[in-house]
Amino acid sequence: MANKLIQFFLPKDRVFYTLFENASENLVKLSKLLVTLVNEPDFGKRNVLIKEMEDLEHANDELTHQIFLELGKNFITPFDREDIHSLASALDDIADYIYASGKKINFYRIEPTSDQGIQKSANAINEAVIAVKEAVEQLRNLKNTQKIIECVIKINSAENTADDIFDMCIEKLFDSDVDAKELIKMRELYQFLENVTDKCEDAGNVIESIVVKYA
Amino acid sequence: MANKLIQFFLPKDRVFYTLFENASENLVKLSKLLVTLVNEPDFGKRNVLIKEMEDLEHANDELTHQIFLELGKNFITPFDREDIHSLASALDDIADYIYASGKKINFYRIEPTSDQGIQKSANAINEAVIAVKEAVEQLRNLKNTQKIIECVIKINSAENTADDIFDMCIEKLFDSDVDAKELIKMRELYQFLENVTDKCEDAGNVIESIVVKYA
Amino acid sequence: MANKLIQFFLPKDRVFYTLFENASENLVKLSKLLVTLVNEPDFGKRNVLIKEMEDLEHANDELTHQIFLELGKNFITPFDREDIHSLASALDDIADYIYASGKKINFYRIEPTSDQGIQKSANAINEAVIAVKEAVEQLRNLKNTQKIIECVIKINSAENTADDIFDMCIEKLFDSDVDAKELIKMRELYQFLENVTDKCEDAGNVIESIVVKYA
Repeated sequence: MANKLIQFFLPKDRVFYTLFENASENLVKLSKLLVTLVNEPDFGKRNVLIKEMEDLEHANDELTHQIFLELGKNFITPFDREDIHSLASALDDIADYIYASGKKINFYRIEPTSDQGIQKSANAINEAVIAVKEAVEQLRNLKNTQKIIECVIKINSAENTADDIFDMCIEKLFDSDVDAKELIKMRELYQFLENVTDKCEDAGNVIESIVVKYA
Repeated sequence: MANKLIQFFLPKDRVFYTLFENASENLVKLSKLLVTLVNEPDFGKRNVLIKEMEDLEHANDELTHQIFLELGKNFITPFDREDIHSLASALDDIADYIYASGKKINFYRIEPTSDQGIQKSANAINEAVIAVKEAVEQLRNLKNTQKIIECVIKINSAENTADDIFDMCIEKLFDSDVDAKELIKMRELYQFLENVTDKCEDAGNVIESIVVKYA
Repeated sequence: MANKLIQFFLPKDRVFYTLFENASENLVKLSKLLVTLVNEPDFGKRNVLIKEMEDLEHANDELTHQIFLELGKNFITPFDREDIHSLASALDDIADYIYASGKKINFYRIEPTSDQGIQKSANAINEAVIAVKEAVEQLRNLKNTQKIIECVIKINSAENTADDIFDMCIEKLFDSDVDAKELIKMRELYQFLENVTDKCEDAGNVIESIVVKYA
């Protein structure tokens, strides 16, 4: 009986999976653009990439907004309302921080190609985001618990790597002889880059708790 | 039947509207004080204004607290519990950041009258907060969807203005020859001012989602 | 009838009290280690203490994780799901900020024994955390409202003290002739220390709202 009831509501319900998948595909595009950006020595070409990132970030804002609206309209949701809210917020934060990191590079006139820390961070971000997307894709069919857990482990491992890169960057920065202005700019960029993987970890945690409840 | 049930609970329910209205009226007073403050060249007179702001901020703390307590006591609420919680938090954050911005001006001995960026930010904040108050007033009668949407657009437009002012301020600051200490203080003030309109946007988003669900 | 139903669910339910108590006991250990750390002049010995803090922080991560999992599994909870979530998050944040503060001291090669502000902050943190633990212990039996309210007052008073210490530290720092790098490091440490008591206040607020609802 309960099963039939659930199936009755399912079609409307499915919208959440699609929205989450679209958002996480956007994130992969965003993180790939970030990797391209930090390897691009030309300021003008970086500006073009940042504009592309802005569009993707706006698209993600729209998707998050839609998820919240659907949450308002649907009494029955495929998993806990709080989890849907938290996951949507985490994906939105990931997009915000990736775009803000990219924007800061040109805004602060930072030369990313001459800083390995920035490049390594971008790679760690890309890895984490790809794992987030893979985990999100499994939500439709929660049977493959093993696969989801592997994704969550990948996310956490990329987050640890990003943390180590961040500590290394900050240590190097304070040991260097850059002036205070430069130091403040670089520190802000490093922090934004590190925030991205923190938010990926948040997304991973939500997905893990969904698995525990429903698998 | 459902309608009658709702009406039965309504009287108790109304308390939320009143609390939200009181909080948003306080915010308008706070943002007006901020505008006065950033145009006041006298340090001592600014201190008097900051004390007034502190009292209003405390009053808002009390209102937020009361909203949370009412939320705990009332099973039936006029809109989603999560929305009430988010809106109360956003209004509380707006008060915190306005007061903190004001306080920082004298604490860091910043001369606001000689910085157009600070003054323009205060004006954008005042516009955003007035629009928040207007939107909150419409919650009692959600029929005027058009009016609420206009308010939300006003909030977002003020937030965009504040973002542009912030970018302009930071760029100017890093291009200037102020010493590092001065730069750190100014940057912190600009960030707090910008946070105010971010929180107004949060409030606007919650109100918009309430409209979509209930109007 | 309702009472019997509640008792039927109670055994499973009790797990939350135990998890919260374990987490808050860990916090007291963490804050005691922080007090020891800021009075320890030897860098190497501080490193040993920081390692101990890291282990406790990981243990708290585990407890928070377990609370969220239990929240997912249990339909019936001893108090509002949102309150359990908020309290667990606050306790987790307290652990994070205490550990991060300790770690920063050696990472930034700060000499804590020569800075009274750091030592006073650590003491205020310890006081706040002990009051949090005492409040958490009362959750099992909400009858002793008076005791809980006393704890909440203690937390808020320690938070006010920590705020004043923070303002004093920042004022002194900007008045001093330390170079920009040193200033940035110290300011970050002071902010992290102050965040701890802010999060204690958050925990206190949640506990207070639980009391109002259920006592």
